[in-house]
Amino acid sequence: MHKLLLSASVGVFALLSFGAAHADELLTLQKDAKQWALPTGDYANLRYSTLKQINTENVGKLAPAWTFSTGVLRGHEGAPLVIGSVMYLHTPFPNIVYALDLNDNGKILWKYEPKQDPSVVPVMCCDTVNRGLAYGDGKIFLAQADTTLVALDAKTGKLVWSVKNGDPAKGQTSTAAPHVFKDKVLVGIAGGEFGVRGHITAYDIKDGKQVWRGYSMGPDADTLIDPDKTTHLGKPVGKDSGINTWEGDQWQTGGGTTWGWYSYDPELNLIYYGSGNPSTWNPKQRPGDNRWSMTLWARDLDTGKAKWVYQLTPHDEWDYDAINEVILADQKIGGADRKTAVHFDRNGFAYTLDRTNGELLVAEKYDPAVNWATKVDMDKASPTYGRPQVVAKYSTDKNGEDTNTQGVCPAALGSKDEQPASFNPETGLFYVPTNHVCMDYEPFRVSYTAGQPYVGATLEMFPAGRVLGDKTDNTGNFIAWDARTGKIVWSDKEQFSVWSGTVTTAGGLAFYGTLEGYLKAVDLKTGKELYKFKTPSGIIGNVMTYEHGGKQYVAVLSGVGGWAGIGLAAGLAKSNEGLGAVGNYASLANYTALGGVLTVFALP
Amino acid sequence: MHKLLLSASVGVFALLSFGAAHADELLTLQKDAKQWALPTGDYANLRYSTLKQINTENVGKLAPAWTFSTGVLRGHEGAPLVIGSVMYLHTPFPNIVYALDLNDNGKILWKYEPKQDPSVVPVMCCDTVNRGLAYGDGKIFLAQADTTLVALDAKTGKLVWSVKNGDPAKGQTSTAAPHVFKDKVLVGIAGGEFGVRGHITAYDIKDGKQVWRGYSMGPDADTLIDPDKTTHLGKPVGKDSGINTWEGDQWQTGGGTTWGWYSYDPELNLIYYGSGNPSTWNPKQRPGDNRWSMTLWARDLDTGKAKWVYQLTPHDEWDYDAINEVILADQKIGGADRKTAVHFDRNGFAYTLDRTNGELLVAEKYDPAVNWATKVDMDKASPTYGRPQVVAKYSTDKNGEDTNTQGVCPAALGSKDEQPASFNPETGLFYVPTNHVCMDYEPFRVSYTAGQPYVGATLEMFPAGRVLGDKTDNTGNFIAWDARTGKIVWSDKEQFSVWSGTVTTAGGLAFYGTLEGYLKAVDLKTGKELYKFKTPSGIIGNVMTYEHGGKQYVAVLSGVGGWAGIGLAAGLAKSNEGLGAVGNYASLANYTALGGVLTVFALP
Ligand SMILES: O=C(O)c1cc(C(=O)O)c2c(n1)C(=O)C(=O)c1cc(C(=O)O)[nH]c1-2
Ligand SMILES: O=C(O)c1cc(C(=O)O)c2c(n1)C(=O)C(=O)c1cc(C(=O)O)[nH]c1-2
Repeated sequence: MHKLLLSASVGVFALLSFGAAHADELLTLQKDAKQWALPTGDYANLRYSTLKQINTENVGKLAPAWTFSTGVLRGHEGAPLVIGSVMYLHTPFPNIVYALDLNDNGKILWKYEPKQDPSVVPVMCCDTVNRGLAYGDGKIFLAQADTTLVALDAKTGKLVWSVKNGDPAKGQTSTAAPHVFKDKVLVGIAGGEFGVRGHITAYDIKDGKQVWRGYSMGPDADTLIDPDKTTHLGKPVGKDSGINTWEGDQWQTGGGTTWGWYSYDPELNLIYYGSGNPSTWNPKQRPGDNRWSMTLWARDLDTGKAKWVYQLTPHDEWDYDAINEVILADQKIGGADRKTAVHFDRNGFAYTLDRTNGELLVAEKYDPAVNWATKVDMDKASPTYGRPQVVAKYSTDKNGEDTNTQGVCPAALGSKDEQPASFNPETGLFYVPTNHVCMDYEPFRVSYTAGQPYVGATLEMFPAGRVLGDKTDNTGNFIAWDARTGKIVWSDKEQFSVWSGTVTTAGGLAFYGTLEGYLKAVDLKTGKELYKFKTPSGIIGNVMTYEHGGKQYVAVLSGVGGWAGIGLAAGLAKSNEGLGAVGNYASLANYTALGGVLTVFALP
Repeated sequence: MHKLLLSASVGVFALLSFGAAHADELLTLQKDAKQWALPTGDYANLRYSTLKQINTENVGKLAPAWTFSTGVLRGHEGAPLVIGSVMYLHTPFPNIVYALDLNDNGKILWKYEPKQDPSVVPVMCCDTVNRGLAYGDGKIFLAQADTTLVALDAKTGKLVWSVKNGDPAKGQTSTAAPHVFKDKVLVGIAGGEFGVRGHITAYDIKDGKQVWRGYSMGPDADTLIDPDKTTHLGKPVGKDSGINTWEGDQWQTGGGTTWGWYSYDPELNLIYYGSGNPSTWNPKQRPGDNRWSMTLWARDLDTGKAKWVYQLTPHDEWDYDAINEVILADQKIGGADRKTAVHFDRNGFAYTLDRTNGELLVAEKYDPAVNWATKVDMDKASPTYGRPQVVAKYSTDKNGEDTNTQGVCPAALGSKDEQPASFNPETGLFYVPTNHVCMDYEPFRVSYTAGQPYVGATLEMFPAGRVLGDKTDNTGNFIAWDARTGKIVWSDKEQFSVWSGTVTTAGGLAFYGTLEGYLKAVDLKTGKELYKFKTPSGIIGNVMTYEHGGKQYVAVLSGVGGWAGIGLAAGLAKSNEGLGAVGNYASLANYTALGGVLTVFALP
């Protein structure tokens, strides 16, 4: 009788959620901790799960429950989705999609393998990565490397619609996950190293019709900026702000790509994301602030209209893309409840903003090694309010072309790159996978040719300890961060950059992966390592968790690659190859080889 | 004091074993169950371990302890070696070798990656497999796909010597593991589908100088057969027996390759192995018994001289290569202690012979589906003594060219292929991974061109149930076999052919892998499944076990491929592609994708 009642109520719930589908099906799905329906876990990008069967007491007993090889090698970023009893898994190029039946030992329900012209591979800057799938309206969305966005029937894998979002012949590629917010599919574009002018595009979830496209630079009609209403640090930006900090037509090949993670606040109906580096990497060639590269954006979901912008690194001289995720956490700051947006930027500063209006609340270094700027000017009255105070010695622009600016911290890949952090509401802290790497940076003159590299700098990266002179040689830390005060709460040293996304749970745990291949679980409060397991290959995927058949699972893709692992992934050996990353991670080859395997953990 | 004594005695032991190295270092090593020093476990190919920390009581608690991606996809056959605290691991083409430090979480001590001309790949008949490494005299031996045998310093991975054993331009390749017996390295040759005349070659372990080479066919000087002393079923074979059952020069492109496992009896100083199919697969084109294809061989280790031969399938009409391992088990038969050699042939008969003289003791079907022959004639007085009694209906020769002979059991890939069985001295039984597959076979005329396929038959394979009419559709069984009586003791159905090698332990367990990717442990006595785990990809590797730091480990390579998995491995789709195997295993794609991962299991 009890059972009958239970299944009846499940039925009602199912009906309700179907009824709500037109309103916002995903909002319901993401509240069910058993599923993992978004590549970011939820709209807010918290990457937090209320599941707690696995907890600080028993996590030491965790063990792999099953594994699945994707059949593809090279860098496996992102995480699978779990919708009901089906897991959806993606791969790097050629971007295969698998639907696995969790009720039948992971049997393959369907497989989708796009036919893509392999000529896209050489125009991918940082390995053949793909950051995952999105779900909505009974469809699975995949943004192929060649920029084709496809909608697949989630039940059968059959193509429902597809649309071309860009052109690899012009250096445009796709690596970001599509993001479904309500009734729209949002996709970005990559190619900042090829002079691609970034944009974010919203497609109708039903048929793939373009609803709007907002560029990172260009006239207001392109950027969807309202000169009077769109604000930057509280002030209207004025007319054609996406043009007037560029020389001539340079904005047309100006970068500001959008290959990271997006978040969404359904109450404000605003989406949040960051734009990437201005092109070229040689700052001498592009005087001005280069707006709106290196910028956090808040746009209206339905119209794309920009509500506010905040440029983190005006006139970038170090490749500090602002594409890292914007985490929408509600926090009490100075006694007041604030709807915050928290962002760990490549430039080494962690920003806490009021997400309703873009007000800057906190901006502090989250790696003590950061040296290119002393601080962000927090004086609202100052003419440089909100701007980082650049240290002349580390200005590659001041030092000029063909001069090697040495010992800049962080390196171009930032104190953190695309690997997403997570927020735990119980501790009120952020759990951040970080890089502890510095660089030498030598800009040189370069000319633009469509589809050709437009980089204009030679880099060499090395452990931050070499600049700090503290005899350390680790290139990563896993940290807990208080975004209310801008302080590191604890920091765990990692031999290599932590290039994996994290998840935290109500079980008091943070999970992350390491470049050598360990899946680790640490205590949220202390950072104490409670569990580790060596997965087949280096981890650059994002850990996720779900429940099936009454059991909590933790899953992660291993498969070394990405920018940090590009030496292994692309078989490069010279230390300044791979945009300067190869030398710094050369010793990874002593620990791991290429792979592509999902490992799913559970308690025995 | 106790400890001191212990380490002193270990020291003495070490000295003794070093002292014995010149005599036979490997004989000592293989008796230490902690190590796995031979690709076959021991000289006798028992694949038996005295380790019993993992046993029938606790095996249900087994879990992966660590994993390692090899960085290569496609079929992963063979098993790693463990010598001391180092694990040596190989991959399919391009045949990378890793030395992993078991004292340091599997850290890569060295990596050897040969540069091979990839044009060897199209002349490999049945995937890019490699069956493993051998160890001896401080060196690791690898037989590269391109037939280069290399000796690597086991400590550094540096090349010590190398020698070319064949020529891929003529269709000659290497897939078998090298075998070190005492002071010699033995290697075979593959290419029976390219008209390669098979041979086995012994090289000096010190410097790679060729000591002897014995061909499968040709004049006595080539076959190392003594017309008066070498016997076949007790009788001298007579002059040029490797020529006179062939028409004209056909023996020169006659096949009989040697790509399987070899065993060695140090007391008799005899090595044992089988030769493969006669070329072409069209029997009409090569009248005669085609000696010594499809033959078990006993040769003197030092001279290569053949002591005895036994042709299992004279004048093959079905591709029943005799290359499967010869297991040297001592058994009591009819009250007498016999030094037996047990062989599960592709043709579906399991043979028990006296290995001292080649006397045939038992020959029985180990899959009831076998229908191409009624039995092996066991009447010593009969003119057909020792010959299988072929059923006319299934004779592809009698039915002739361009006629499709239907429903032959087993299929060309045999009731068992290269996947090695094991012998457990406690139960006195053999544990055999088997295929349960039949075929249609249509021979056609073909002409020989060096380096080109010389197959001459179109095949299509399907589950044996279709011929038996018993409504089953499984294509595999894992069986326990009594070689004294020639009877199946128990048989576990498997959905797919069991293409993985097995190991049994003093813990009462048999381990094997499945094509979908499960590592399984079953009770030796009953066949009851006690544990299974889904590894990343389909398993065609051989399970092995070792002990390190007081803990027993079980390890297996996953990575689907081989002949059964050729559809997945080579991306073939038509059912009669892959020499007829593709259709029969097409549904494998519902369970697994390509991979290449070592999974190492232990108790928690
Ligand atoms: O400017 C761009 O368009 C662009 C694209 C990508 C990408 O698509 O992966 C990366 C970067 N930049 C980049 O700067 C960067 O650090 C980076 C790291 C990674 C990665 O996956 O590990 N991709 C990218
Ligand atoms: O005749 C030959 O030389 C030859 C070679 C090989 C090989 O080298 O793998 C196989 C076969 N034949 C063969 O008949 C066969 O069934 C087979 C299976 C496999 C495998 O690895 O799964 N190899 C081979």
